[in-house]
Amino acid sequence: MNLMIDLRKVTRVNVSTRDLQIQKTYETLFALEDLRELFRQSLPTGFNDAEKEEFSRNLARVKATIEELEKGEGKLTCQKIGNKLDVRSREEEFINIHPIQAAGRLTPEARKAIISYGDGYSTCDYCRKPFRLDKITRPPIEEFHQDLAKFVNMDQTRVVPGARRGFQAVTQSLVEKGDSVIVSSLAHYTEFLAVEVAGGVVKEVPQNESHVVTAEATAQKIEDVKKETGKLPALIMIDHFDYQFANEHDVYGIAKVAKEYGVTFLYNGAYTVGIKPVDGKKIGADFIVGSAHKSMASVAPSGVLATTDEWAPKVFRTTQMVGDVTKRKFGIKEVENIGCTLMGGTLISMIASFPRVKARTENWDEEVKKSNYFLEQFQRIEGSKVLSEQPRKHTLTKVDTTGSFDTVAKTHKRRGFFFSDELKDHGIIGEFAGATRTWKLNTYGLSWDQIKYTAESFIDIAEKYGLKIN
Amino acid sequence: MNLMIDLRKVTRVNVSTRDLQIQKTYETLFALEDLRELFRQSLPTGFNDAEKEEFSRNLARVKATIEELEKGEGKLTCQKIGNKLDVRSREEEFINIHPIQAAGRLTPEARKAIISYGDGYSTCDYCRKPFRLDKITRPPIEEFHQDLAKFVNMDQTRVVPGARRGFQAVTQSLVEKGDSVIVSSLAHYTEFLAVEVAGGVVKEVPQNESHVVTAEATAQKIEDVKKETGKLPALIMIDHFDYQFANEHDVYGIAKVAKEYGVTFLYNGAYTVGIKPVDGKKIGADFIVGSAHKSMASVAPSGVLATTDEWAPKVFRTTQMVGDVTKRKFGIKEVENIGCTLMGGTLISMIASFPRVKARTENWDEEVKKSNYFLEQFQRIEGSKVLSEQPRKHTLTKVDTTGSFDTVAKTHKRRGFFFSDELKDHGIIGEFAGATRTWKLNTYGLSWDQIKYTAESFIDIAEKYGLKIN
Repeated sequence: MNLMIDLRKVTRVNVSTRDLQIQKTYETLFALEDLRELFRQSLPTGFNDAEKEEFSRNLARVKATIEELEKGEGKLTCQKIGNKLDVRSREEEFINIHPIQAAGRLTPEARKAIISYGDGYSTCDYCRKPFRLDKITRPPIEEFHQDLAKFVNMDQTRVVPGARRGFQAVTQSLVEKGDSVIVSSLAHYTEFLAVEVAGGVVKEVPQNESHVVTAEATAQKIEDVKKETGKLPALIMIDHFDYQFANEHDVYGIAKVAKEYGVTFLYNGAYTVGIKPVDGKKIGADFIVGSAHKSMASVAPSGVLATTDEWAPKVFRTTQMVGDVTKRKFGIKEVENIGCTLMGGTLISMIASFPRVKARTENWDEEVKKSNYFLEQFQRIEGSKVLSEQPRKHTLTKVDTTGSFDTVAKTHKRRGFFFSDELKDHGIIGEFAGATRTWKLNTYGLSWDQIKYTAESFIDIAEKYGLKIN
Repeated sequence: MNLMIDLRKVTRVNVSTRDLQIQKTYETLFALEDLRELFRQSLPTGFNDAEKEEFSRNLARVKATIEELEKGEGKLTCQKIGNKLDVRSREEEFINIHPIQAAGRLTPEARKAIISYGDGYSTCDYCRKPFRLDKITRPPIEEFHQDLAKFVNMDQTRVVPGARRGFQAVTQSLVEKGDSVIVSSLAHYTEFLAVEVAGGVVKEVPQNESHVVTAEATAQKIEDVKKETGKLPALIMIDHFDYQFANEHDVYGIAKVAKEYGVTFLYNGAYTVGIKPVDGKKIGADFIVGSAHKSMASVAPSGVLATTDEWAPKVFRTTQMVGDVTKRKFGIKEVENIGCTLMGGTLISMIASFPRVKARTENWDEEVKKSNYFLEQFQRIEGSKVLSEQPRKHTLTKVDTTGSFDTVAKTHKRRGFFFSDELKDHGIIGEFAGATRTWKLNTYGLSWDQIKYTAESFIDIAEKYGLKIN
């Protein structure tokens, strides 16, 4: 295979130059931030002499660093931010196959936006009556909320500090103490907690032998709950793709069943909204929850809660509390959101990434193709298995290398870390360090070149340790 | 006055050069982000020919922009991020006296940190057992939690998505349906909502004629609640400095009263934690809540919830929910926090700003001095009043210019906006645009030069419109 030969020729060649250039990119960015700070500390009328001097000094530093960046020369001088934080350059230096980081990587637009809007309440410059985040028109936050609703084809949306806070707003609005909430037996822990904090009790729908949750099983569970508790569950909350296998669960069928029983349905799109098309009306969901730091290229914590005009008055209900002394009311503030939610860099990163996020959902089939290609190659390594359903319908996958890389780990002095070491040497990170039995990886957002390179690297490592390639 | 003469000489001179340099700083930062993206899109083995070419092109752009930045020349070419977001350069171009933005402005360290850690789950690279944010040691998140606890002299802390989510965690843990919660009659709306979402009822402590909440009034309110409802309030929640006047309320005395009655006390430090020393043990607080995007130079939404070892098991209680089918448990995850809270840029900005934030609380007296100096000058403008208590003990202040600038607004064709226009012409922003009666301003973080310049600018504007200066 040509690619393999190429790979062997180039692996780790020029890497130190590249790494240095990456560090010099950061160093230049940081030097520019120091220069920017001078503007912040000075009078609007201009620099005084001392500031002029510092400006020149800073500028000289910026220029010198760029010189080094260009040539790939110089010493590493900016490895720490303050004295405790390492520069995080893994997205530049490596191919990252981390299961939950792939689709949360910022777009260049989001990175620019947070440079500009990082400050605390940066979105609140033009906050006017009625003083609520989603009503602000400059920056275009109100418009973004409408765009978001269209994006998932629902009537109304709010941004929330992570999908979990979206679940919570719904459970706390709908679930009374002791109520049952049906979740998947592959439900994420945050769904458990959202039910618990509302005083509810989770009831899991069993998965079938292929680790899939079906409409039939959900209907059966509704019947079981009804029989056991004497009433219907207060809510059904199902992940379209779960966090364990990223298998697709029958959300269309489940929504239909929910409707038949008259039970409210929340679609958990933490692994879909922002990477594949999601149509809430077509699904028949009462609520759609998405995670922006997981799947919408945004700063954490961020997410989206979308609903219908029917449910909005309940879950987005506004405060009724009146001060007994002052008679104060804060009429437009929403109780479950505790008023405004993402008042700065988190929301701005969502807005800045949104055009690209919207566009990329159209390429989902290609992403899935790359995922399947990688896993085909991966399975050529004898003893390597895919535990998720196949063909893959997602880019997140659970794999089992007990029969391949783990056999090497058994006798290697670095144990399972030999595999991490090898991947790192090939410029790949994001595996669970030391794990060589079952673990997860995500190929989302990798180019075909990066996918092929990653596949070849796996095979290369396998060959090095004498594993059989089919 | 010398400064005034200087001011007149320099106002708006060179401003276009400065503004251009600021824009060119952003343009360079953005060009570097485009260059950085090339590393992200390429193979770890190095650039291919097309990428090499693009790298050179990007680098040339960076260098050209820096050239323009140095000379203060060139055209503005980067005024939008994507096609919807304006570059936000008000912190560089202007002196910002916005009431709630002052102490949330990022430190240079925080800005560098979010450049590096903006990506979604950027803090989770080394998340290992027991898989909880506050236990992560790389970056040093666990250590930061300990530092934070020391900083406010409490036993335990968690980071939360804004002070409001800290209130909510406490109310939802302590307040049963129908319970009374005592708040200040100057309480922030988020306290109202946090009580409402927990099913409680707010009971306001009246303020005295100086707009101050005293221990006596609080004791009286406890008695009133007891008489009216037959039981003690479930919680007392008082702002050390309120959002309206930023008057100091007797939290020490109130904590003592709370203890005497055996009622739990939450200290709302949204306007203190991160700018002035706060000692939870000395105050006698059961809970301390702070806002990081308001007062700790951090990305929103972020904040801190601190408590004692006595209360931690209740408010930080871990999940008890068990899956009925799978028997799954997520033992270490905390119910009220819905597991992890700030998994990326928000937390990293808190950590990066922390050393400077800690240090700046030691300069609080100087900040208050500057606040008082500014207001002395401000009150030289006849008809201008300070509605907050004086001498000021805070940098946030409510002022009344009905007798000064509003008299001009009455006949000015731009109405109250004349004042905003004038301030802007002097390089000052952050007032409530158009307001010339009662409004708020915050001098936090301004240097003495900036303070004096701001004071002179106010006087300059007053003189221009024939207002009398005393």
